Amino acid sequence: MAETAQTRESEGESNTLRVLVATDCHLGYMEKDEIRRFDSFQAFEEICSLADQNKVDFILLGGDLFHENKPSRSTLVKTIEILRRYCLNDQPVKFQVVSDQTVNFPNRFGQVNYEDPNFNVGLPVFTIHGNHDDPAGVDNLSAIDILSACNLVNYFGKMDLGGSGVGQIAVYPVLIKKGMTSVALYGLGNIRDERLNRMFQTPHSVQWMRPGTQDGESVSDWFNILVLHQNRIKTNPKSAINEHFLPRFLDFVVWGHEHECLIDPQEVPGMGFHITQPGSSVATSLIDGEAKPKHVLLLEIKGNQYRPTKIPLRSVRPFEYAEVVLKDEADVDPNDQDSVLEHLDKIVRNLIEKSSQPTASRSEPKLPLVRIKVDYSGFSTINPQRFGQKYVGKVANPQDILIFSKSAKKRQTTGEHADDSEKLRPEELNQQTIEALVAESNLNKLNSEAEKFKIDEEDIIVKVSECMLERVKERSLQSKDGARMTLSSQNLDIGGKSGTAQSSLNSFSDDEDTREMLLGGRKSSGFTRPSKDSTDVAKRGASRRGRGRGTSSMKQTTLTFTQSRSTATIHSEEVASSSEEETEANEVVETSEPEESLPQVGRKRAAPRGRGRGSAAKRGRKTDIASIQSMMMSKDDDSDDEPPKKAPPRVSRNYGAVKRR
Amino acid sequence: MAETAQTRESEGESNTLRVLVATDCHLGYMEKDEIRRFDSFQAFEEICSLADQNKVDFILLGGDLFHENKPSRSTLVKTIEILRRYCLNDQPVKFQVVSDQTVNFPNRFGQVNYEDPNFNVGLPVFTIHGNHDDPAGVDNLSAIDILSACNLVNYFGKMDLGGSGVGQIAVYPVLIKKGMTSVALYGLGNIRDERLNRMFQTPHSVQWMRPGTQDGESVSDWFNILVLHQNRIKTNPKSAINEHFLPRFLDFVVWGHEHECLIDPQEVPGMGFHITQPGSSVATSLIDGEAKPKHVLLLEIKGNQYRPTKIPLRSVRPFEYAEVVLKDEADVDPNDQDSVLEHLDKIVRNLIEKSSQPTASRSEPKLPLVRIKVDYSGFSTINPQRFGQKYVGKVANPQDILIFSKSAKKRQTTGEHADDSEKLRPEELNQQTIEALVAESNLNKLNSEAEKFKIDEEDIIVKVSECMLERVKERSLQSKDGARMTLSSQNLDIGGKSGTAQSSLNSFSDDEDTREMLLGGRKSSGFTRPSKDSTDVAKRGASRRGRGRGTSSMKQTTLTFTQSRSTATIHSEEVASSSEEETEANEVVETSEPEESLPQVGRKRAAPRGRGRGSAAKRGRKTDIASIQSMMMSKDDDSDDEPPKKAPPRVSRNYGAVKRR
Repeated sequence: MAETAQTRESEGESNTLRVLVATDCHLGYMEKDEIRRFDSFQAFEEICSLADQNKVDFILLGGDLFHENKPSRSTLVKTIEILRRYCLNDQPVKFQVVSDQTVNFPNRFGQVNYEDPNFNVGLPVFTIHGNHDDPAGVDNLSAIDILSACNLVNYFGKMDLGGSGVGQIAVYPVLIKKGMTSVALYGLGNIRDERLNRMFQTPHSVQWMRPGTQDGESVSDWFNILVLHQNRIKTNPKSAINEHFLPRFLDFVVWGHEHECLIDPQEVPGMGFHITQPGSSVATSLIDGEAKPKHVLLLEIKGNQYRPTKIPLRSVRPFEYAEVVLKDEADVDPNDQDSVLEHLDKIVRNLIEKSSQPTASRSEPKLPLVRIKVDYSGFSTINPQRFGQKYVGKVANPQDILIFSKSAKKRQTTGEHADDSEKLRPEELNQQTIEALVAESNLNKLNSEAEKFKIDEEDIIVKVSECMLERVKERSLQSKDGARMTLSSQNLDIGGKSGTAQSSLNSFSDDEDTREMLLGGRKSSGFTRPSKDSTDVAKRGASRRGRGRGTSSMKQTTLTFTQSRSTATIHSEEVASSSEEETEANEVVETSEPEESLPQVGRKRAAPRGRGRGSAAKRGRKTDIASIQSMMMSKDDDSDDEPPKKAPPRVSRNYGAVKRR
Repeated sequence: MAETAQTRESEGESNTLRVLVATDCHLGYMEKDEIRRFDSFQAFEEICSLADQNKVDFILLGGDLFHENKPSRSTLVKTIEILRRYCLNDQPVKFQVVSDQTVNFPNRFGQVNYEDPNFNVGLPVFTIHGNHDDPAGVDNLSAIDILSACNLVNYFGKMDLGGSGVGQIAVYPVLIKKGMTSVALYGLGNIRDERLNRMFQTPHSVQWMRPGTQDGESVSDWFNILVLHQNRIKTNPKSAINEHFLPRFLDFVVWGHEHECLIDPQEVPGMGFHITQPGSSVATSLIDGEAKPKHVLLLEIKGNQYRPTKIPLRSVRPFEYAEVVLKDEADVDPNDQDSVLEHLDKIVRNLIEKSSQPTASRSEPKLPLVRIKVDYSGFSTINPQRFGQKYVGKVANPQDILIFSKSAKKRQTTGEHADDSEKLRPEELNQQTIEALVAESNLNKLNSEAEKFKIDEEDIIVKVSECMLERVKERSLQSKDGARMTLSSQNLDIGGKSGTAQSSLNSFSDDEDTREMLLGGRKSSGFTRPSKDSTDVAKRGASRRGRGRGTSSMKQTTLTFTQSRSTATIHSEEVASSSEEETEANEVVETSEPEESLPQVGRKRAAPRGRGRGSAAKRGRKTDIASIQSMMMSKDDDSDDEPPKKAPPRVSRNYGAVKRR
């Protein structure tokens, strides 16, 4: 049968799910600032407008849509207005949500917003919450719940963590179908990093529910996306989430919370999924990472392949950042403050000049943000407010252009690289705390973390005990970690090929390489596919081995939804991760038990994965939604086919994985 | 042509506008109280449900929908959920808004909510703001604006008062048509009483825009409703609005803010309009007025007639109130506290017993609120918390059953009547301030008012100056005030015929009489018509006379909307009220200038009204919407047809009125 190119194209269209991915819009940020008060809204409106122009199926947001947990009336009204103008229209919605919507969207209405017959939703928005708009209070409501009650967004990924203890969560995907493409969209709204770390290390604590098989479709037919909102950069391993905690069945991860735009999807070696870190759409702290161009991602998914297209945001206020070490500058004299002022003035003027360069990416001229980080060792400081006075009307932040720091030993050795600690949690830094933070010790940082994340006493005690336990624990290093390190060393020499990507911020040194591979390795269709080929699986499978402790396992349960709305089945996959692994992935520690081979730089080792699907299937069972729900409540979800007290067999402290093919 | 009864009935239906009137829902009140947290929401849901059951055309709310200016996430979500469930449906909306909607609803969308094609609005809600949910902040937004942005309510009556000075407002009605019935709905969101008082006394300050005449229809074809949210009870004339400030062309007034349910419409003698005071749907202070049964009003309007039907709220928590003067009780001994405790316990148990009486009006059993106001003169007080302990689980407010007061001289003379001052502003009283308020002097009250209403220094100075000015001002008493007083004295003997209405709280002593007339005087149709017959007008017209001062005037301007949406014309009517009148209406003061006849009790005098419509029409002019808007901005709206500096002729310090027929 002869098909025209057009027919084929439209068939391709009807099977391609198009998603606009953005995160950390921080609506209401600086809403009291005369100059910057509309910045966050303009960027968000641009995002919605790009979604409209690119005719995406939906917008996917990674949390921190609001800057404040209790947004002002003004912020709520502006946000609702934007959503109402862009999301309600006559555009047809061309995908279906086939999972149980009452589970996915557990609000009063319990359905995806475009199915409500009283609203004309043309552009659905799916979002999780971040740490800024996290649920709280007696009803555990987020500011996002207000938008959800208005039917303007689909809020998913809110977990009931329970009152005390580690807690148990089951992550139910939103199952989306468009033509032949099936996407399982997992959402994990922000959970305090320390707590989520602990949960990932506790057996039974995190269950990843998988779509069931039906009508001859395989679980591997689903493209699995996870959206989360956590710290990714690991200065302190306890207050960031290691990518290796995530289940291997994932294909694509949208990482919210980190404000630096690292939007090109990067493969996590050994894990088989790619991560995009879209970064914030508004700079909430004047650090290096936020000075880079901001983008959003157009993600097209067709079957098991995806095509990422990054789109620059044009409405973002220009931000120029520089660092200067006064004692390295030839033309300044410690005894002559005028020479210092003159030097800094020159830099500011250069930055203003630079920001005003006409580029295609700016929609309208805006006063720039300018920040100079001044290492004043051997010099005295200057009053930043007084310094800024002459730039009123020339920069958007005259009051805090300068920030002073004294060089620490560590910082000197890293040379021109900015220190990671400063970028740890950019949106937590405000103008008042930046100076304090820069100078403070790691201990102080930890304390402030505790405050920020409302750690209760019990939590701190548990955390301290865990730290101590870790030091004395037996540990055996994971082969896949070795693989990651090998890749790094192999490819160090080819890093830096793509212009802007030389940042010291990349949490993995092989990010560059991954990106290069991705960009260079596209097929003619432009689609990328996470590398989960059988060779890889076999290699990884071969290197997988049981451990002696027998306390962790991989378990897969097939559960069939029987409720009317649901047309898909789901089975549960429980992932118990090893605490050893977490330790080794995050910090280089000595081990006194070399019974397992240690990973060494340059020594390649395939990551363990592809646990026999047959065995997993054997343990699968069919049940109804009531069972799922009761399972969510029950302490031991194996209670109905195993004695309650007996710990189920587990793959020793490794991630469970379902072999995909 | 023979018409069946059914056809005639449905024709009647199609010409009858049905409105459910309620006010002061105070959503979120006591949201942190374990027992009472849902009370406000249950009552509001019942109101919506009654609207649904009675198939009204819309709900009309009189302000204070929210208890807090910044409602919690929980309150917002609950409110939105209720509105979404009741207001969005397939019911057809059978009336039209024919005025310029961008003027009526000046938000981003500028249209009545049911006309937005992206929403399926079946039950529109119209609301003004109250003092609890008043607009504030740099964008002058109310919490109601959030609901309005969501398209769940039609928020009208928000005035731009301008920064300083008295300010100028133009009140544009929402013009509603249903079949042959035309309703002009005026809204005046809460303005600080002191300020509104001042505005009413300042020429040009308040303009009431009237619907224009078109297609042979007359301005008198419109049924004019005003919704406002102000203090009505006049302990201090400056901090309450006198009904006589309102324009006489009104037919019906919905008075929000006062929490006592005085829902039966009462005629204001001499003014030609009736007032309903629906009262709050939730008791926010445990005073006598709130203990009365709560109702909402079904208002049916057909042509120039209306039919009020009061509907009891069944979901409201029972509230029993009693007052006791210990020294008047025989069985208590000042030296024996046990006897006091025993006596009070008996009262509480009786009240609990009384509240649990099965009545048809309760939908479900709820723990009652119980309050005993104890005059403890000659006795010592009891710890209310300790006293309440044994009623935990039996009453909803064990912590504050008792409130102690010492008898003041004034209170002793009024005998069993509660003092008005306590009921002045019931929802402002919370548990913490009640005790303080009860004992405090009038001076203290004034101060606390200033705090509550955020009076700035300038305002206080102006207020004080006004007070002083008033004392030395010349004054001449109004004939219509005499009329009111006459009616009072004439009808005192027939008061008290309707059971519950013997309250000393009625602000006019002839309320009883008015109600009797209303209830008894219904025609077979059940419709009531404000008494604006020609005889009345003639009588009042005859008694109207110019004053020598020539500084106040009645002015009427006809303005035609030319914008596309508008199909009706509007002309402006400016009402300049006299400060003398305000003084005399509120307090009995001596006057040293008897050049005008003084009103005396028993001396009947027709109120001035019915200013020649011909002369008003002569001064009318046609213009477009741009002129209206510029007029709203301009200091002197007569500037285009009169020299700007020349003060227009005014009816001396009297209310302007348009002769209706």
